[in-house]
Amino acid sequence: MQYFPPALETLTEQFARLPGIGHKSAQRLAFFVLSQSAEDVQAFADALLGAKHSISLCPVCQNLTEGEGPCALCSSDKRDRGVICVVASPKDVVAIERAREYDGLYHVLHGVISPMNHVGPDDLHIKELVERVAAGGVREVIMATNPDTEGEATAMYLSRLLKPFQVKVTRLAYGIPVGSHLEYTDDATLMRALEGRREI
Amino acid sequence: MQYFPPALETLTEQFARLPGIGHKSAQRLAFFVLSQSAEDVQAFADALLGAKHSISLCPVCQNLTEGEGPCALCSSDKRDRGVICVVASPKDVVAIERAREYDGLYHVLHGVISPMNHVGPDDLHIKELVERVAAGGVREVIMATNPDTEGEATAMYLSRLLKPFQVKVTRLAYGIPVGSHLEYTDDATLMRALEGRREI
Repeated sequence: MQYFPPALETLTEQFARLPGIGHKSAQRLAFFVLSQSAEDVQAFADALLGAKHSISLCPVCQNLTEGEGPCALCSSDKRDRGVICVVASPKDVVAIERAREYDGLYHVLHGVISPMNHVGPDDLHIKELVERVAAGGVREVIMATNPDTEGEATAMYLSRLLKPFQVKVTRLAYGIPVGSHLEYTDDATLMRALEGRREI
Repeated sequence: MQYFPPALETLTEQFARLPGIGHKSAQRLAFFVLSQSAEDVQAFADALLGAKHSISLCPVCQNLTEGEGPCALCSSDKRDRGVICVVASPKDVVAIERAREYDGLYHVLHGVISPMNHVGPDDLHIKELVERVAAGGVREVIMATNPDTEGEATAMYLSRLLKPFQVKVTRLAYGIPVGSHLEYTDDATLMRALEGRREI
């Protein structure tokens, strides 16, 4: 029985470890790598090692950063240091920055509390958030976790944790998304949109 | 505007170059790599470079092989050297070996003739096949390209090319796949199955 060379099997296994990639896809990717030039494969390997080695967490906001010390946002003098927006992932920071509306700082939890997935408060960067608030100078903490069960629970947990520090804790507004159709909006969202209605 | 660290963007771009992986999936994979241990990422990078460096084509059958010289199949003394099975890709060799029926040698074209994708006869390992047949000792060449338009055209092209060498050129049988339903079999396959009917 002749199978693929061991080095190709090893590469296929490595690809198959990535989330959402099954054995067949992994094999296709491994064959693609073989068809690339040696320089291209080297560039891929360098990118893997480079990202892993050079990226660390900002000691202040826990967002991804390159190099030593606080990240660009935390060391910027154009941001309001009295407001902290709490998000679950670095992707959420990019999403909020894209809206060009917010000028405060962030705090990245790197996950949400999820008993189902065995993620408790100690697995997230919650201690660092409490320390930042305890250090003073913070007027408001905005909870910007996802509007699902786990995001909600995490926001509730944090708001209770921050209560002793007399800081204003807010939550992103719920409502109908811009550009959507009332007809297709789910009941829970419509209910929240009615609850949160504002005078025009 | 704060975006992701450049090293993360670079890694995302590298993942997005893989076939079937869009920007969002690439970003998800890059984040997954960051979440892995340094050893795991090193193993992934090593697998990439290892596969590219150690795998080459067998000088005889053009199948993937590790190390110098002919591959395990071409150097085996248990295989019938008078029969060559022509396939489009190394995956097809593995598929045929899995059937445990064939004991001849192979020839891997690494593609099929496809004018739509600008693949002509010179882009495939056809010259090497003709040389093998011209060298003598070959009784039969089995065309085992896929039963689609391009696979058919390639098989026809090769059979004409090999005609001067007085070698028997055969094609895999068409018919209804084992375990399928006549009701759902397409017309072209049923027609071929009737044409190729055999006495029982």
